[in-house]
Amino acid sequence: MSSSRSVRKLEVVSPVPADIDIANSVEPFHISEIAKDLNLSPNHYDLYGKYKAKVLLSVLDELESSDNGYYVVVGGITPTPLGEGKSTTTVGLCQALGAYLDRKVLTCLRQPSQGPTFGIKGGAAGGGYSQVIPMDEFNLHLTGDIHAITAANNLLAAAIDTRIFHESTQSDKALFNRLCPPNKEGKRKFSDIMFRRLKKLGITKTQPEDLTPEEVKKFARLEIDPNSITWRRVMDVNDRFLRKITVGQGPEEKGMVRETGFDISVASEIMAVLALTTSLADMRERLGKMVIGNSKAGEPITADDLGVGGALTVLMKDAINPTLMQTLEGTPVLVHAGPFANIAHGNSSIVADKIALKLVGPQGFVVTEAGFGADIGTEKFMNIKCRYSDLRPQCAVIVATIRALKMHGGGLEVVAGKPLDHAYLNENVPLVEAGCVNLARHIINTKAYGVNVVVAVNKFSTDTEAEMNAVMNAAMAAGAFNAVICTHHAHGGKGAVDLGVAVQRACTSGNQHLKYLYPLDISIKEKIEAIAKSYGASGVEYTEQAEKQIEMYTKQGFSGLPICMAKTQYSFSHNAADKGAPSGFILPIRDVRASIGAGFIYPLVGTMSTMPGLPTRPCFYEIDLDTATGKVIGLS
Amino acid sequence: MSSSRSVRKLEVVSPVPADIDIANSVEPFHISEIAKDLNLSPNHYDLYGKYKAKVLLSVLDELESSDNGYYVVVGGITPTPLGEGKSTTTVGLCQALGAYLDRKVLTCLRQPSQGPTFGIKGGAAGGGYSQVIPMDEFNLHLTGDIHAITAANNLLAAAIDTRIFHESTQSDKALFNRLCPPNKEGKRKFSDIMFRRLKKLGITKTQPEDLTPEEVKKFARLEIDPNSITWRRVMDVNDRFLRKITVGQGPEEKGMVRETGFDISVASEIMAVLALTTSLADMRERLGKMVIGNSKAGEPITADDLGVGGALTVLMKDAINPTLMQTLEGTPVLVHAGPFANIAHGNSSIVADKIALKLVGPQGFVVTEAGFGADIGTEKFMNIKCRYSDLRPQCAVIVATIRALKMHGGGLEVVAGKPLDHAYLNENVPLVEAGCVNLARHIINTKAYGVNVVVAVNKFSTDTEAEMNAVMNAAMAAGAFNAVICTHHAHGGKGAVDLGVAVQRACTSGNQHLKYLYPLDISIKEKIEAIAKSYGASGVEYTEQAEKQIEMYTKQGFSGLPICMAKTQYSFSHNAADKGAPSGFILPIRDVRASIGAGFIYPLVGTMSTMPGLPTRPCFYEIDLDTATGKVIGLS
Repeated sequence: MSSSRSVRKLEVVSPVPADIDIANSVEPFHISEIAKDLNLSPNHYDLYGKYKAKVLLSVLDELESSDNGYYVVVGGITPTPLGEGKSTTTVGLCQALGAYLDRKVLTCLRQPSQGPTFGIKGGAAGGGYSQVIPMDEFNLHLTGDIHAITAANNLLAAAIDTRIFHESTQSDKALFNRLCPPNKEGKRKFSDIMFRRLKKLGITKTQPEDLTPEEVKKFARLEIDPNSITWRRVMDVNDRFLRKITVGQGPEEKGMVRETGFDISVASEIMAVLALTTSLADMRERLGKMVIGNSKAGEPITADDLGVGGALTVLMKDAINPTLMQTLEGTPVLVHAGPFANIAHGNSSIVADKIALKLVGPQGFVVTEAGFGADIGTEKFMNIKCRYSDLRPQCAVIVATIRALKMHGGGLEVVAGKPLDHAYLNENVPLVEAGCVNLARHIINTKAYGVNVVVAVNKFSTDTEAEMNAVMNAAMAAGAFNAVICTHHAHGGKGAVDLGVAVQRACTSGNQHLKYLYPLDISIKEKIEAIAKSYGASGVEYTEQAEKQIEMYTKQGFSGLPICMAKTQYSFSHNAADKGAPSGFILPIRDVRASIGAGFIYPLVGTMSTMPGLPTRPCFYEIDLDTATGKVIGLS
Repeated sequence: MSSSRSVRKLEVVSPVPADIDIANSVEPFHISEIAKDLNLSPNHYDLYGKYKAKVLLSVLDELESSDNGYYVVVGGITPTPLGEGKSTTTVGLCQALGAYLDRKVLTCLRQPSQGPTFGIKGGAAGGGYSQVIPMDEFNLHLTGDIHAITAANNLLAAAIDTRIFHESTQSDKALFNRLCPPNKEGKRKFSDIMFRRLKKLGITKTQPEDLTPEEVKKFARLEIDPNSITWRRVMDVNDRFLRKITVGQGPEEKGMVRETGFDISVASEIMAVLALTTSLADMRERLGKMVIGNSKAGEPITADDLGVGGALTVLMKDAINPTLMQTLEGTPVLVHAGPFANIAHGNSSIVADKIALKLVGPQGFVVTEAGFGADIGTEKFMNIKCRYSDLRPQCAVIVATIRALKMHGGGLEVVAGKPLDHAYLNENVPLVEAGCVNLARHIINTKAYGVNVVVAVNKFSTDTEAEMNAVMNAAMAAGAFNAVICTHHAHGGKGAVDLGVAVQRACTSGNQHLKYLYPLDISIKEKIEAIAKSYGASGVEYTEQAEKQIEMYTKQGFSGLPICMAKTQYSFSHNAADKGAPSGFILPIRDVRASIGAGFIYPLVGTMSTMPGLPTRPCFYEIDLDTATGKVIGLS
């Protein structure tokens, strides 16, 4: 392995400046330099300005016979309001591997939603000296993938309401004749996509005029039950007033009003499809089989039934190519997809990971982040993402901080605007030790997948040696392969060299064999119960609605899908206040939904908000453009 | 002038194949080749894939001292359902100038809305052998400008409802304290954008703690009157069910429901701002001063009052750079902005035209298209766009077809799905002659701006020599500089060489001096009446609502803006059925609205639909991706 040409060593300053100031202090390499380091030729990628490029899926075909690199997933302990620095650690680890340990490395990150950038949250490009740059391009439009998702999602939504409307105003024959208009020669024809519906209906005829009146009716009338529609519109803006709306109130819509709502774009099933697909052909099929609701007879109605699966694929054809960017130290990053981590599986895309594994090659490293704590993110990484990708990780990192462990050990609640309790700022070994039950359960659960677990303690300046030793001891006792302290926020890759070495050893030690938590061919309930057990639950209870939905999905033939639990990220249990490692609780399943195109059933444990709001003083008050330089200011 | 390197001569086939087949039969040049022909160095543009590049606004600064080329605007006769081929003629003329007449040339086109591509309309890249390629990229996401507009428009919409909500639940003091939170040192500060509101309120204090309770209230409470809100949400999808909706029905919104609706994205005022702005700094100001409604006291409330003008500019910072593409014959095209042609001014952007005029240089040609007929598109080009750009056209082209003139002469209505009346397919000179009153009035009106008028007769195979002679005679009699027949649809640039020669002569004949139709410093009503007169109206009548709005805008200090009439494009009058050149009618003004940031008042003559719908069988039934080749199929 030769040293990467584009590596840049940082000169760090203490105290650590603001993220945007660090990001702006570095002139990024032209992205074609980063691409060249990965042996990508210009026909392998499309430039999007100077610092972003879309790597084309065709790279996968060309490198089909190459071997994969090592595959590392980064998860965390149960999150707290104090923040654990999972993205920052993911970036820091890669900066260490690439810029200090001379390994080929690729970081695979999720694309953040643009909405929250203007609300409370700010950006998501890492922090301190471990960031993806340019951070404004990372946090804003990027290469338009989320915009493509919004467009596709909403085209499908428009198709649903319009179809119901047109069905309600036309006879079977008029409807059929409009769906199959005569061509210039006066002959009616089915368009290609219509053969998908004909096949589903068991009609093998190929000419419209051959259909019986009964078949005409079956083909032309989807008879969508408005109350069964689960497909909502989306927007990549924090717009709480769209959570629940009534549409169709215009006079032309003739009273066909309906209550529905908007989610934020990253909650769209199309985002989950993008993250789980493996090829253009696979994406076409997944988009076409997305279920938007049921017919009045209880049959699932798909995007292809509405004739729109092809158009959705056209809208998404560039979005399937991951975006290449770089870290502060010039190591390469693939940014791609960013599905919700509760109603979806919260992992970046399979195609990005696949491309990355080929590009780094054997002895190289791909580090990918899973959303939320390991109970959610890593679990879904293993049981959903790896199941569809057929990829096998060698190592899982679990990120922890002393502060967060103190909270799991019984530390006081953190209230925004109030000073931190002194326990978080001063040594308190017993509190840390008590909190390690949370870390330990994540280690045990993760190790059960057959991977080596490395614990990364993301150090804050107030952490003491005794506290850190307590964590390392607890981690090793729980079966971790290794546990190391890192300071990449303050020092960049140099601060994560020990972590990089530990991850290398964990990957090369052999003996890893991915074991799923559950097989697919058991019942939906048995799968839910297997996951609940990993949370520490002693049982599961279902509402009547959940029972009904499970029965429906089973009847519709969807019971073979993996399960994607929509549970709070703040606890192993359904109760966000249960810190540490709760056990013996009964996990309540309120409802059960499905993303059939993406390919999972998602039980709702509690209520998930899928559209954030803006606070009284949103971040946007600080954001502006320096019109003299064209630089973004005030982005955090 | 040396011959352009990237010029490609077409081999044409008869009969003319489908647009998509012609577009796919040509391998486009890499866009860097097209850029090189324009003497653009790689630091002047950002690539977006292989066939699109954003030309950076900084080019304008660098070329400040260069002279402009000739400036040609393409308008049309009053449109009919038969189509006149204005875009096709614009492209064909440029192919002639660039590929056959050896002139430097740049075509400036509007970006089409993506929504209608999946509805009825299909694409908008020209047609036959006069097209912009790749046509799928032109018609779909392009470089994301419309997506940026959607995001910015909807961020502002979310800010409005959320602000009303937060004001309704908080005391003056709590609201103020939240708006000016303490920094790390515990000190409250105004953010930069807040000084814009303070200035508007006449408050010169710079420290939050210095404000009196009265000033705190004035500053923190926008007191937006929900009934006055004119800002709507947008989406680039034909979604008729969003035309009228009720928002805020979620339990968290505590009953703060409101009736509103979505427009298609290109109807956003932000699109009009993009089209009329001249620099980043100018765009920042225009976005900030967009008025979203009034306070309860009747004061206009702006995006900057909401603190969001800077964030909108950040979202739009890349959208301000026009997108470079190419025609079938390899001549360069700038695609930029696509505002509605009724509620907005329907012209492509000022910055694209400015960059283009510098890039072609003296003796070069910039051809830009104006929406709808010359009564609307060319009128707004002159009185709104040229007023803001300070650019002066030398020549205006008016596109006509024999068929459309026959309809203006009294030909039967055209009904979709029924065969054309034989009058349209066979020689009928009297009908053509009768229809020429429409052409003549457009010529007279356009000539009054002080430009030379060239009439382009876009020839169909059924047109006869006698019919064409009738048009040419009528055109010359009405004062046209020249009138020529063109066949660019069938022959590409070769078919528009005569037109190219005529346009060259018109531009170089001297003697042009732009005269506006009205000065800005007369009353809103006087301006409306000047325009109405050019339509042939003998007077104007205003509803009570229109009177009220005119009074309000005058009182608010906006009466100095130019006027943008929102009138049907299908007639000089307000009645779409009035073909030819109606006169003596009273033009009814139903309502008057304003786009203060874009910079115009728009009187509504009738009702304008700002959200199209989908038909029973939308175009999307034919659209799919060939997943083996990655090519789009079925796009028309």
